[in-house]
Amino acid sequence: MSTQDDTPMNGAESLVKTLLDSGLDTCFTNPGTSEMHFVAALDHVPGMRSILVLQEDVATGAADGYFRMAGKPACTLLHLGPGLANGLSNLHNAKKAGSGVVNIVGEHAVSHIELDAPLTSDIEGIARPVSHWVHTSLSATDVGADAAKAVHAANVAPGQVATLMLPSDTAWNDGGKVAAPLAATPRPSYDQDALEIAIAALSGPDSLLLLGGAALDEQTLETAGRIAAKTGCKLLCEWANSKLERGAGRVIINRVPYPIDQALEALAPFKRIVLVGARAPIGFFAYPGKPAILTAPGTDIIELCQTSQDIAGALDALCTGADAQNTAPAKVAQSVVPDKPNGPLDPDGIASVLSRVIPENAIVVDEAITTGRAFFPVTAGAPRHTWLNNCGGSIGYGLPVSIGAAVACPDRKVLALVGDGSAMYTIQALWTLAREQLDVTIVIFANRVYKILRGELTNVGVTNAGPKAMDMLSLDQPTLKFVEMAQSMGVEATQVTDCEALELAIETGLATKGPYLIEAVL
Amino acid sequence: MSTQDDTPMNGAESLVKTLLDSGLDTCFTNPGTSEMHFVAALDHVPGMRSILVLQEDVATGAADGYFRMAGKPACTLLHLGPGLANGLSNLHNAKKAGSGVVNIVGEHAVSHIELDAPLTSDIEGIARPVSHWVHTSLSATDVGADAAKAVHAANVAPGQVATLMLPSDTAWNDGGKVAAPLAATPRPSYDQDALEIAIAALSGPDSLLLLGGAALDEQTLETAGRIAAKTGCKLLCEWANSKLERGAGRVIINRVPYPIDQALEALAPFKRIVLVGARAPIGFFAYPGKPAILTAPGTDIIELCQTSQDIAGALDALCTGADAQNTAPAKVAQSVVPDKPNGPLDPDGIASVLSRVIPENAIVVDEAITTGRAFFPVTAGAPRHTWLNNCGGSIGYGLPVSIGAAVACPDRKVLALVGDGSAMYTIQALWTLAREQLDVTIVIFANRVYKILRGELTNVGVTNAGPKAMDMLSLDQPTLKFVEMAQSMGVEATQVTDCEALELAIETGLATKGPYLIEAVL
Repeated sequence: MSTQDDTPMNGAESLVKTLLDSGLDTCFTNPGTSEMHFVAALDHVPGMRSILVLQEDVATGAADGYFRMAGKPACTLLHLGPGLANGLSNLHNAKKAGSGVVNIVGEHAVSHIELDAPLTSDIEGIARPVSHWVHTSLSATDVGADAAKAVHAANVAPGQVATLMLPSDTAWNDGGKVAAPLAATPRPSYDQDALEIAIAALSGPDSLLLLGGAALDEQTLETAGRIAAKTGCKLLCEWANSKLERGAGRVIINRVPYPIDQALEALAPFKRIVLVGARAPIGFFAYPGKPAILTAPGTDIIELCQTSQDIAGALDALCTGADAQNTAPAKVAQSVVPDKPNGPLDPDGIASVLSRVIPENAIVVDEAITTGRAFFPVTAGAPRHTWLNNCGGSIGYGLPVSIGAAVACPDRKVLALVGDGSAMYTIQALWTLAREQLDVTIVIFANRVYKILRGELTNVGVTNAGPKAMDMLSLDQPTLKFVEMAQSMGVEATQVTDCEALELAIETGLATKGPYLIEAVL
Repeated sequence: MSTQDDTPMNGAESLVKTLLDSGLDTCFTNPGTSEMHFVAALDHVPGMRSILVLQEDVATGAADGYFRMAGKPACTLLHLGPGLANGLSNLHNAKKAGSGVVNIVGEHAVSHIELDAPLTSDIEGIARPVSHWVHTSLSATDVGADAAKAVHAANVAPGQVATLMLPSDTAWNDGGKVAAPLAATPRPSYDQDALEIAIAALSGPDSLLLLGGAALDEQTLETAGRIAAKTGCKLLCEWANSKLERGAGRVIINRVPYPIDQALEALAPFKRIVLVGARAPIGFFAYPGKPAILTAPGTDIIELCQTSQDIAGALDALCTGADAQNTAPAKVAQSVVPDKPNGPLDPDGIASVLSRVIPENAIVVDEAITTGRAFFPVTAGAPRHTWLNNCGGSIGYGLPVSIGAAVACPDRKVLALVGDGSAMYTIQALWTLAREQLDVTIVIFANRVYKILRGELTNVGVTNAGPKAMDMLSLDQPTLKFVEMAQSMGVEATQVTDCEALELAIETGLATKGPYLIEAVL
C-alpha cells in the first residue's frame, strides 16, 4: 500500500511516508529538539514502530541486528552530531558486517548552522568514516527523494550504512513530497573469469573453500558441502560472520581462529584457497615478529566472489563445475546432546550447557570473547540456530544487536552471550529490552577482567607487565553486580556459579517471553 | 624533574615520559590490544595516574572536567577508531568548553592499516570534527616530539582538543626519544582598537558587559563588578560556562536564559553590548518564526576580547578606562541561607535546599536541565563555590565531568546535579567514581521524562503531538531505579521524595569521602 497522496505535508511527514513506502517500518531512536517534527510525524503517519533507547550506540547496534535478521534496514533517529557520534562505534560494526542502516540525523535549521551554536558540529564529517552514503537535505521538498536514495544506498549488497542529515527547517517546512521507492541494485556477478581456476583449485584436503557473508545461509552452505564432498576440499568461514546458519542437519563449518598462532596453524595446510564472500585471512591485530597475512607463504588465493557479489550464483557455478549437484553434502551436523555438565563454570562446561539448551530456531548473539571461544565447535550439534558475530571488533555490540534481532524475529528466541567488559559499553540496552519486553535471554560471563587483553599483552611482546598495567585490565574493584543492574532497568535477573544452575537459569529465561539476564560468575 | 635520560626505550615509554615532562600526570583510559605497550609503560615510568573507565565517553568527559579544575590537560588513552568514537560526544563538549585534552588513540601498526582489518577505520577522520589538532605518529623516534606538540596544542588558550594516533609499532619499536616541553603560546591581546569604543559603550543600564570564559574567575569578575558599579552597565554571562566562580562575597552574575522567549526578553533592554570572552548571543536551536540572533535589532555589539584572547587584560583596560579601579564592585553576593524548605520536591524547594547545603569551596557540576533552571539564581548567596555548565549541549557530560573535577581537586567537595535522562548516557561513570572513591555527591533528578523535549515540541511549532510522540519522550516504562543501579556499580545510594530528606541525604553524602548518589524523585 502506498502512502502517496496529495495532502499538504511537511518534510518530516514526507520522510516517514517515504521510508514506509520503501519498506522500512522500524526506527530505533533517541531524539532531541531538532528531530521533534519527525517524532510528531510518527503520530500522523501510522506504520512506523519506534523504539526508544537511552544511548545512541544501542540504536545503531539494534539497527545492525535488525538488518541481519530481517534482511532489510531499520532507520535510526539521532540528535545532531553528538547523537550520531554516540552511535558511531556500532555503525562501524554494522559497516564491517555489511548491514544496511538508514540513519536520520537531525541538524540545525540551515540558517542556524553558520551561527555555530553549542550543538553545531561537522555532522557530515562525523558520519563519513562509518557511512557508505552521506547526504544533507536542503529543503522540505527534497526530503522524500533524499530518503528514497538513502534506503536505496542502504540496500546495496550486502548492506550499507546510509546517513541522511535533516535540518530542522526541512522537517518543519511545508512542501514535503513522498518519493517512490528506487529499484534495488542487483548483486553484481562473481568473477566469471576466475571460475575455471577456482574449480580446478578445489581438489583434495590441501585446498580450502573459505566462505563469508551470504555464503553462510542454509542453502548456500549446503551447496558448499556438496562441493567439499565431491572435491575433498576443506570448508572454513571467517572468524567473524554477520549471520551463520548452523545446528543439527546443517553443514558444519568452522571459523578461522582469532588467536594468531591458532589461525596460522589452521591455515598452514592449504596450498589453494578459493574465496566466496570472504576476504583473504589477515590478523585481527599486528603482532611484533608475526605475519599479518595468515595464509602460508606461496598459498594460491583465488578470489571468486566478493561479499557484495552474487554469492549464491558463485557457489552454484562451483557446484556445477565440480559436478557435485547430486553429491550429498559433507559434514552435516548430527544432533548431539552432551551429558549434563556439573561443577563450577568453565568454558567447556558452559559450552555443553549451551548445546543442551539452545532451542530450535534460536538466534545466538555471540560477544562472549575469551569465555566464548569454546562455545562454537561444541554447539554445532545443537538444534538449528543462527549465530551472529561481531564483524567490526568494537565491543558493546551484543546487547544492542540482540534488541534488533528480537524486534526482527518476534517469534524466535534470542540468546545473547556477552562478556562482562563488553556488556558495560552499552548496558543501557537493558532498559529497552525491558521496555519492549523483547524475548532475549542474556548470559553475562563475569570473569571480572578484560581477559582478552591479558593475553594480548603477551602477544604484542609485553613480558614485564607490572601491577599498574594489570590493574588497568581488571574489573573487580568494585565488583559489578549485574543482577542488581539488570533489575534497576526492569530486567529480571539471577546469578549462577555452576553448570547446573546455569542450565536451569537459561531454561527459565527461555521458558517465558521477555528479557531475562543471567550473571554467570567464572 | 626531567625524565630525560639515555636509556634505550620504546616509543610508548618515550610517550609517557614526554607527557610527564610536559606536565601531564593523569590519564583516563579504556585501552585495547593496540595500546598494551602504553599500559605496560605505566609500570616502568612512575608518575602517571591512570584511571580506568568502562566506556570511553566517561574518559573524555573526565578529561574535560579535569582541565576545567586543574587548569592543565589530562590525557585519554583510547582504543582505535571505535574507542575514540565512543568518546566523541564529550570531546565535542570539551571543544566547545575550551578545555584542553590530549587524546592518545591506538592505531594498527603502520603495515597493518592497509589490510583493512575489522577494527581498521579512518581514525583521523573520526578525530577531526572534535579536534583542533590531529596527528599520526609515523615511527617510534617521532612519538616523543609528537606528544610534546600535542600537549602544546592542547594548551593553546582557552584550551584545545589534540588527538595523537599511535600506531602500535611506533609504541613497541625501540628508538623512543623524550621530547622537551614546548613553550606555551601566550594569549593574544584583546582588540585594542575596540577598547575606546567599548569604554564609551558601557554607560547606564541600557549597556551590557557580557562575559564568558576566563572572565568568570573570581578576580576578573571583581573587575567586571567595578566597571558595572562605575558605569551603571549591567553584567550577564553566557548560558553555558566552562567554569564560573560565585557565592557569597563574589560578584553576582546571571546567565542569558536558555528558553528563547526569556532570552529575548533578557536582552531586549540593551542598546550596546560589549563582549569579553563571550560570543554574541544566539539561540541554542532555531525555532520557526523566532529570531536566531537574540539581541534586539539595532543593538550595537562591540567584540573586545574573544575567549582565546587576554581576557584579564581586557577587563583591566576597561576598568582603567572607566576609571573604576577604586570603585567597589557592584552586586557582591551576600550570604543567604534560605528557610528550610519542606514538602514534596519541586525546583524552588530543591534550589533552597542546595543553597543551604553547598559547602564552602564546592564544585557544582550542573546537568540538571529543566529541573535545574531554578537552581542558579537562588544559590548565588551560598558559600563560595565553582559552577560548571555543559558548553556543547551533548547530554551525558555531568557524571564524567564530575570524575575529572574530583580527580583534579581531591580536597574539594563535588556536587553533581544531573537529570535522569542525562545520567543514562554515561551511567558507567558510577563504577569509576566507586573505583577511585572520588568525593562526589550525585543528585539524580528523576522526573522520568525527557522533559526538555516536551517543551521543545511546542517551541518548534508542534501543536498536535499524539501518544506515540509523547511515548518517545517518556522514561517511565520501566522506571529506572537509580539506587539499585548505583549500588550495582559500587556506589552507595538513597532515594528521596521530599525536601527534608533531600537536605539530609546531601549532607550525608558530603559528610563522608567517596561517592554517594541520591535519587530525587519529582
